[in-house]
Amino acid sequence: MGDSSVRQDVIVGVDLGGTKILAGVFGPGLKCLATAKLSTKAERGYDAVVERIQRCVRDAIDEADLSSKQVRAVGIGAPGAINPSTGDVLFAPNLRWKDAPLGEDLAKFLDVPVFVENDCNVCALGVHAVELEGKPRSLVGIFLGTGIGAGIILDGELFGGFNRTAGEVGHMVLDVGGPKCGCGNRGCFEALASRTAIFRDLSDAIRDGAKSHLVDILAPGEAVTDLKSGDLRKALRKGDKLVEKVIEAAAEYTGIAVGNIINFLNPEVVVLGGGVMDALQDDMLAIIEATARDYAMTGTADGIQILASKLGDKAGITGAAVLARRRVSAK
Amino acid sequence: MGDSSVRQDVIVGVDLGGTKILAGVFGPGLKCLATAKLSTKAERGYDAVVERIQRCVRDAIDEADLSSKQVRAVGIGAPGAINPSTGDVLFAPNLRWKDAPLGEDLAKFLDVPVFVENDCNVCALGVHAVELEGKPRSLVGIFLGTGIGAGIILDGELFGGFNRTAGEVGHMVLDVGGPKCGCGNRGCFEALASRTAIFRDLSDAIRDGAKSHLVDILAPGEAVTDLKSGDLRKALRKGDKLVEKVIEAAAEYTGIAVGNIINFLNPEVVVLGGGVMDALQDDMLAIIEATARDYAMTGTADGIQILASKLGDKAGITGAAVLARRRVSAK
Repeated sequence: MGDSSVRQDVIVGVDLGGTKILAGVFGPGLKCLATAKLSTKAERGYDAVVERIQRCVRDAIDEADLSSKQVRAVGIGAPGAINPSTGDVLFAPNLRWKDAPLGEDLAKFLDVPVFVENDCNVCALGVHAVELEGKPRSLVGIFLGTGIGAGIILDGELFGGFNRTAGEVGHMVLDVGGPKCGCGNRGCFEALASRTAIFRDLSDAIRDGAKSHLVDILAPGEAVTDLKSGDLRKALRKGDKLVEKVIEAAAEYTGIAVGNIINFLNPEVVVLGGGVMDALQDDMLAIIEATARDYAMTGTADGIQILASKLGDKAGITGAAVLARRRVSAK
Repeated sequence: MGDSSVRQDVIVGVDLGGTKILAGVFGPGLKCLATAKLSTKAERGYDAVVERIQRCVRDAIDEADLSSKQVRAVGIGAPGAINPSTGDVLFAPNLRWKDAPLGEDLAKFLDVPVFVENDCNVCALGVHAVELEGKPRSLVGIFLGTGIGAGIILDGELFGGFNRTAGEVGHMVLDVGGPKCGCGNRGCFEALASRTAIFRDLSDAIRDGAKSHLVDILAPGEAVTDLKSGDLRKALRKGDKLVEKVIEAAAEYTGIAVGNIINFLNPEVVVLGGGVMDALQDDMLAIIEATARDYAMTGTADGIQILASKLGDKAGITGAAVLARRRVSAK
């Protein structure tokens, strides 16, 4: 243990979510050698989750036929506000954590350097460094899931802003007086186009009598809001008009948000990812792009790429591995 | 002419607007030695405006008891999309210019290096470098006038983005389906809080029977929309309820835009300027700041300063001088 002389360029990237933990082992050239998955069980409290992250990391290392002595560093993307210098999770409502010394605790147990960053930042880093081979000088990655967040890359590096909280695009107000958001305000992007917002609109419409195939696939006792983004894709393939209308509206709001970002920050690339996009990019991307280009001022969107990430649920572990490799090399 | 050996560290900064040209002569330490002003007369066409800018620059130099041989460089802030490398004005709807080689033409006539940038970028640079002594690492300067624009400073330098058009904050959608904007979309920040939007709302309300002191100060044949931001300040001092309501709404929309920017980019300082703020900052700043902090996510606005610029209508000439001094020194 702790003998770094036998350590190779093996990095573990961890995506810590509110419901599941995903760990990936990456070899030279950031090739993914193996992954492991565990549920988060946030309700069991901080110590239990730390133990589960460790276990998931060890499972992934074992899956890759390696030993933990061969691992050079671990990177973690965690939901919420992070202090990347200390590895502390300052505030993570999903996990009910406040000022949790995650980096320090894991480094102690795993006996390797551990680096922590916000999950959306890590995803943006993964897309930029691996999927786009580090080419764009500036990039905004928007991730649509239960919530909506973004990561900003400027000059090839993560941009954190003054409080290291940059990228909170989910709470960009697009429709003053619009639907209530979890944050207490109204008309935030997240209240208009997240999975939560999409299922709220579907559920309300069905309750008000709208017809939808979604009702047919519900298990006994299951509510529409219990369904997954993949179920929406299936309903769309069956020509479900209600789902089509709701997804189109979410894509239009996303396009307006992308237009706002192009007008304001003018990044070289805007990339879209997250569970909603992974399931529905064929249905949403064209609408998002057309709307964004319509809302961008003359000339401002010329040559700017609007893409859907192909990394899927590997964006987080990939980005976490990129983060750890950069930081451990800079040490 | 052209003998640079006698040139001192004298810089001329020019603020080219749709209605007026302001030129300022700056000595060592960017002390403003003298200014001159001419109307733009954009309707006379490009060549006439270039001649007027030259004349305004020469007037300012003469006013400072200097000769043009002593001027090291000229900087210009111009409305619209600019190519700062060539000095071309790509597109300036206010002036009805397209692909105008402003920098080159002026350099020829004035026989000194001329540097051109977007007017809001130049104002942000002036506020950052002179008013805030270059201290904030990141700053967004929002300028409320006939339109609304912004300049972004990151790591102490102007950030232009991929197409050098970053800062088009006036067309950030805040209220989908809101009032029609000049750009063709609806609910843009500029359609909610610019001088144009404020006077549109006042004029509509008065036409619909609302009472206001503004009606009493109209000259014969003058419309409410012909009044100036300073007239609103006078009406507020008289307790004008209509003006109060409209200004409060504009300040709230501005606060929401500032909140969006703090959530998304998280700059160290947000500074507000432009004609509307210069006239009404005592009435608007507190509302803008309270609204922005309310819309910013927990922790994201901590320590971030929200200020009104004290440079007034000198922001443009000051920033243009900063620009020219930096660029000529880098040559």
